[in-house]
Amino acid sequence: MCRWLAYSGSPIPLEELLYKPEHSLIDQSLHARFGGHTTNGDGFGVGWYGVGADTPVLFRSLVPAWNDRNLREVAAHIESPLFLAHIRASTGAAVQQTNCHPFRYGRWLWIHNGIVRDFPRVKRELALAVDESLYACIEGSTDSELLFYLALTFGLEDDPPRAVERMVGFVEEAGHRHGTQHPIQMTIATTEGESVWAFRYSSEGRSPSLYYSSDVRTLRKLYPDRPLLHEVSDETRIIVSEPLVDLAGAWNEVPESSYSLVREGEDELRTFRPR
Amino acid sequence: MCRWLAYSGSPIPLEELLYKPEHSLIDQSLHARFGGHTTNGDGFGVGWYGVGADTPVLFRSLVPAWNDRNLREVAAHIESPLFLAHIRASTGAAVQQTNCHPFRYGRWLWIHNGIVRDFPRVKRELALAVDESLYACIEGSTDSELLFYLALTFGLEDDPPRAVERMVGFVEEAGHRHGTQHPIQMTIATTEGESVWAFRYSSEGRSPSLYYSSDVRTLRKLYPDRPLLHEVSDETRIIVSEPLVDLAGAWNEVPESSYSLVREGEDELRTFRPR
Amino acid sequence: MCRWLAYSGSPIPLEELLYKPEHSLIDQSLHARFGGHTTNGDGFGVGWYGVGADTPVLFRSLVPAWNDRNLREVAAHIESPLFLAHIRASTGAAVQQTNCHPFRYGRWLWIHNGIVRDFPRVKRELALAVDESLYACIEGSTDSELLFYLALTFGLEDDPPRAVERMVGFVEEAGHRHGTQHPIQMTIATTEGESVWAFRYSSEGRSPSLYYSSDVRTLRKLYPDRPLLHEVSDETRIIVSEPLVDLAGAWNEVPESSYSLVREGEDELRTFRPR
Amino acid sequence: MCRWLAYSGSPIPLEELLYKPEHSLIDQSLHARFGGHTTNGDGFGVGWYGVGADTPVLFRSLVPAWNDRNLREVAAHIESPLFLAHIRASTGAAVQQTNCHPFRYGRWLWIHNGIVRDFPRVKRELALAVDESLYACIEGSTDSELLFYLALTFGLEDDPPRAVERMVGFVEEAGHRHGTQHPIQMTIATTEGESVWAFRYSSEGRSPSLYYSSDVRTLRKLYPDRPLLHEVSDETRIIVSEPLVDLAGAWNEVPESSYSLVREGEDELRTFRPR
Repeated sequence: MCRWLAYSGSPIPLEELLYKPEHSLIDQSLHARFGGHTTNGDGFGVGWYGVGADTPVLFRSLVPAWNDRNLREVAAHIESPLFLAHIRASTGAAVQQTNCHPFRYGRWLWIHNGIVRDFPRVKRELALAVDESLYACIEGSTDSELLFYLALTFGLEDDPPRAVERMVGFVEEAGHRHGTQHPIQMTIATTEGESVWAFRYSSEGRSPSLYYSSDVRTLRKLYPDRPLLHEVSDETRIIVSEPLVDLAGAWNEVPESSYSLVREGEDELRTFRPR
Repeated sequence: MCRWLAYSGSPIPLEELLYKPEHSLIDQSLHARFGGHTTNGDGFGVGWYGVGADTPVLFRSLVPAWNDRNLREVAAHIESPLFLAHIRASTGAAVQQTNCHPFRYGRWLWIHNGIVRDFPRVKRELALAVDESLYACIEGSTDSELLFYLALTFGLEDDPPRAVERMVGFVEEAGHRHGTQHPIQMTIATTEGESVWAFRYSSEGRSPSLYYSSDVRTLRKLYPDRPLLHEVSDETRIIVSEPLVDLAGAWNEVPESSYSLVREGEDELRTFRPR
Repeated sequence: MCRWLAYSGSPIPLEELLYKPEHSLIDQSLHARFGGHTTNGDGFGVGWYGVGADTPVLFRSLVPAWNDRNLREVAAHIESPLFLAHIRASTGAAVQQTNCHPFRYGRWLWIHNGIVRDFPRVKRELALAVDESLYACIEGSTDSELLFYLALTFGLEDDPPRAVERMVGFVEEAGHRHGTQHPIQMTIATTEGESVWAFRYSSEGRSPSLYYSSDVRTLRKLYPDRPLLHEVSDETRIIVSEPLVDLAGAWNEVPESSYSLVREGEDELRTFRPR
Repeated sequence: MCRWLAYSGSPIPLEELLYKPEHSLIDQSLHARFGGHTTNGDGFGVGWYGVGADTPVLFRSLVPAWNDRNLREVAAHIESPLFLAHIRASTGAAVQQTNCHPFRYGRWLWIHNGIVRDFPRVKRELALAVDESLYACIEGSTDSELLFYLALTFGLEDDPPRAVERMVGFVEEAGHRHGTQHPIQMTIATTEGESVWAFRYSSEGRSPSLYYSSDVRTLRKLYPDRPLLHEVSDETRIIVSEPLVDLAGAWNEVPESSYSLVREGEDELRTFRPR
């Protein structure tokens, strides 16, 4: 089980979420409380959009997140209005930079927590379904990256929820053909730099945890003495595998089989249904 | 808090102790049960003596032990009658190969679990006390390596217990001069390839855990169906920070302020008294 | 352009060939003299067969070979009668352990110097031709590893020369279909632990350099004062991308479009013809 | 022999100097033309000042510079008005992050190319001369870092030229006492974020190469079609171990035994005399 977070809102230094909260993502890499693994030391990555930049910047490393001095330096000096971060607990694939999340294609980023069950059995079939023009872009050996290229194949850039639903439907069919009862388990976040889509789903209906932060206006009333809440815009939103701080009323579970869309304007929470 | 083990006895593949036991050293790097840190992911090292070799071989890495494929390969094929292994949880010093244990000088190896308190305050004084001819051999920045070179300065090669007692006495004096109440906490193992000395001590009398295995002849009677116990010689002995397997009667605590000497012939357990 | 060597003969410490010769493989990683790249700093690997071991041991690293202390330690203490070593100069694929040679499958090892031209264009077609049961074993993203799994698909374990000829024929056809004039350039060594097959071929007839050492009995007469030549057996043979020492009469070029078979008994040099 | 560059002027992306010039610093890490080593693959580092930031940001890595994807990503997106970059060819000390330049103390950065001869002999004496309050800040094992802390001890923060002159004088005395004829060889750049001091000196009067760029106004006239020259301010200046591009009139050698001061307002070139 990995851990991840997605941030969208007023530009803040990366370290505000990666290091500073009491139960920050870096802390979770050593002491995760939800799910199977307590240590997420098999690499990490951050992808962020600069103010006005075309493509996101990637920083990925196979050193455990808590030991990477370069990340700490950069995170203290980079401000971003939208970033995804991920710490990895390998379920088998090699620990190498190209297996670290986020994965990137053009303007798009992708992070995943979960598993494709019996992956070695279906890997070839999934890889063959990737569009020919995308196949050579696959750099690593994880299920997570393959899910990304399948979603791109199914139209991620045009209609993300529909593409992810088709991807999951395809993976479930392939799994069933190979005799796997519950082929996929996942939380996924993907973004093109403006909206963030966050999915929670598993074939067996027991998905990894996923939370989104409450409306900032509500949080300010609940916690008038938290300065960060007064600095960020009303539209700021965080989506996380595990809550970053223990604050009553701050976190809401994304329900099973649903997805959340975070963007300028009203956010959405909708049902997710594999196709 | 780090974790370590020392093995002396019939030649066995390193993996027999590093990977195979249910609570092996590699497992401890992810799930240590005793002491403060549950994760020991800040590097590891093994030093072993080949059959008939002059100096020990060192293998040290800053990748977490559970992820190092080269270690796994080598550990499956190297047999050794005497080796020390160590997994590190940094108490501050950089994560780099030269800060990984064991440290080596000539035929000697040294591993340490514990801390010199207020190390930045006393570091210079300790370094200046290292013999001039040894000073330039210091490669890293840990307290552990400095303790080794101090022990060498105080005669480790001639009389290990006395040298370590003088080293600890010196460190305590230096600490007290700088206002530190309990300057040192440690378990240490050192060897020249034939005998292993294992020390347990702390200024405050609450030292890190340390265990030695029971006599092999006794263990064979208790556990007649454990094949490894029948393959190794009567004199085989393991010393560990934490038991490697849960076997009643297999492990004996090294008492506070004492040291154990493991060698061909009768082993010894004696009082340790800083000088 | 990478560099590699294959050794078969009396057991010797790995360091005898990796470090000691004046123009050793490690030296070649800094100062290669033949071919395009003078620096081969994008990872290295060694695979060796222990005396009586079932499968070869792999040691691969993305640190430049000249900086890897663990390799230096291990190479000084491991003896092997048959080993392959490789230093990498990436032609594009990521620098990661799973892209370092040798590649291993069961008892088999494989190293490659050269290139599949326009690899991104043909990668998918080559991958799809890999046997379904082997597909999930592919860990990295190089052309070299894919050539190995293609050769395995075409029967490497039964008839190595024929399998490599069929593999090359297939790659050339695929390349031509995609408009590539000269699809492949290669020297390759492969072994199952007893025989070594070394191939030199390129579609354009200008292959990377490849040499095999002269008969040891001849060399002893030429160089009576080289002790290593008197310690190794008559059948000892080295195959290399570049000569390891400048000794007149010691090295013979493997001709274009041919392969060499080194084993107990008479060695062979035969024509290589893609099928 | 290492290679380094110092940039001061209009804010530019780091990649403009690290990657883009035909003979960029990254290119020099593979193909240096001046001085002894052609490969500088033993780690690299960049330290930069953000616009309005208090302390510089450090990015150091032991991967060869040409292979570090994170550096490439970050360098394309970070703009800085003042930065130092360094690629390392080790003269013996371990390849580890804490031995990579720049070294940092508060607002100050320091990079060095050269050597303290017979360093193991004088290391202890130099270390003991470091101010007690600074001693524990030393993290690595290089001569270069020790020179930095000695310069800080001798007043770098108050009068950089005088402090470096005293430091060199001290090192030469120490070297002579230990029988070393020519104790030091160096080019050094140091900065507090506003001015850059660049020193060229060696005991034997044959120092490593060092160049500073010509006045931008002159360069614009010479090369009217180079857009970068028209984007940067009149005061922009580069100091380098080796020219980054082959442009007649663009580079001027810093003379033996002298130093250059680059800052807002008139730059200076003065004699350097060890004290």
